[in-house]
Amino acid sequence: LSLAAATGCRPGADGGFDADIAPGWDIGGNANGGYLLALAGRAMAAAATRPDPVTVTAHYLAPGKPGPVHVDTAVVKQGKRFTAVQATLRSTAPDTMGRPILALLGTFGDLGGGNGDSHPTRVDAAPPDLPPVEQCVRITPRENEPFPPPFSTKVEARLHPADAGFATGDGPSGEPRVRGWFRLPDDEPVDTIGLLVVVDAFPPTTFNARLPVAWTPTVELTAHVRARPAPGWLRCTFSTRFVTGGFLEADGEVWDATGALVAQSRQLALLPRS
Amino acid sequence: LSLAAATGCRPGADGGFDADIAPGWDIGGNANGGYLLALAGRAMAAAATRPDPVTVTAHYLAPGKPGPVHVDTAVVKQGKRFTAVQATLRSTAPDTMGRPILALLGTFGDLGGGNGDSHPTRVDAAPPDLPPVEQCVRITPRENEPFPPPFSTKVEARLHPADAGFATGDGPSGEPRVRGWFRLPDDEPVDTIGLLVVVDAFPPTTFNARLPVAWTPTVELTAHVRARPAPGWLRCTFSTRFVTGGFLEADGEVWDATGALVAQSRQLALLPRS
Repeated sequence: LSLAAATGCRPGADGGFDADIAPGWDIGGNANGGYLLALAGRAMAAAATRPDPVTVTAHYLAPGKPGPVHVDTAVVKQGKRFTAVQATLRSTAPDTMGRPILALLGTFGDLGGGNGDSHPTRVDAAPPDLPPVEQCVRITPRENEPFPPPFSTKVEARLHPADAGFATGDGPSGEPRVRGWFRLPDDEPVDTIGLLVVVDAFPPTTFNARLPVAWTPTVELTAHVRARPAPGWLRCTFSTRFVTGGFLEADGEVWDATGALVAQSRQLALLPRS
Repeated sequence: LSLAAATGCRPGADGGFDADIAPGWDIGGNANGGYLLALAGRAMAAAATRPDPVTVTAHYLAPGKPGPVHVDTAVVKQGKRFTAVQATLRSTAPDTMGRPILALLGTFGDLGGGNGDSHPTRVDAAPPDLPPVEQCVRITPRENEPFPPPFSTKVEARLHPADAGFATGDGPSGEPRVRGWFRLPDDEPVDTIGLLVVVDAFPPTTFNARLPVAWTPTVELTAHVRARPAPGWLRCTFSTRFVTGGFLEADGEVWDATGALVAQSRQLALLPRS
């Protein structure tokens, strides 16, 4: 199932949207957070009647299991350039009826047509310096091992070798950072909804920190989509500066093949008590 | 009016909250974005029955003018540690009845009690290096000048002299960054709701960029409150790395007098067309 198919939604009776959490997008049985964000984001874009998630925030309330879901959407304001939409993604499986999985807030617009051309521009950063794709590390599932997860077959994420030691046996780098290439399999284009998957598609930064930390569940994730990506591999970087008080943030940047920043993200994640 | 008084709210008939945008917290007639966030945030905390905005996002839909407002709140999930709340802040003045000003999503918790003590900690950053408070620049209103705004009398923000040239006549620094001290007047304590004011209390970073850009309206602001601040002056830094496609982000950090990071923020702002 392509990402587009796995995030498809159908208008529901109440003005919301019916959809399904597709199997295979999970990590240990729970759907990847970026995939859930894209699923809800596509329904929100439909409600907004504007294609691009200029800024979208999701709060993660419960794990998403494969099965039917419903996205309630409420347009708060339809303006001249933007539409603001509140949403919730709920399970509609019989045994979990109505359980909220995500709560969301997004502002949608239209990033096509070179709107930025007439604006001043300044970029004080550069895409991450990555070895060629073929020298980077694809983490693929091995039988009977919990890591890497099924999700890693749905996307092609290739890690900078210096950031992949936690997986290859060289050990964590000591720096809470993960850099790598991203594309979808079978040359499926990454649109601005697809970018919502990219910003949560890499292993946690903490895997490279020498900290007694395993999984770090996301509390909240905000993505800013700054431009529609050009075709080709995306360059991504995620890093963490503050592991404090039982929380950490992970800041992401996604750059397209032309060297343009296409998305920024920040998530707040929880350190399970040690 | 103290910040606590200016952000007070009363339970309304429908389960939401009535409040007032107080006069004097404005910039050119429009209430400061951080003040509006704190006003709504206090109502959301009351709905959540949890005091601390662990993460809160606001989308800015229309300017807030002094006068009566209503905060609709909906608890999406009340969990063991956190409560997630959706909200809208709407004008209830007769001529603007129901106009949405902010749409919000927040997860509230309890950051008291030293929850972080048992967690691994790592901080790869330091508070901004600031000259003593008395050597920093307080921007105060001068009669008949549009800048600085009335809001600047409601808070005490003192800018690093190197970042204040746009106001003192030395000219912009050329770096889209603003650093400074913050406290509330009359020794009013800054609680975690008060931090929502701090993250939008400084002049825009673009004032120090040598770009043909004046005001940059906020589209979205997300604050992560990482700890309750200790009493005393707060050290703040805001910077921008990407001015692209008609948008820019401004990233903020707030550190307390003990040197602890107490809040992180990111806002997405709009470059008016030139």
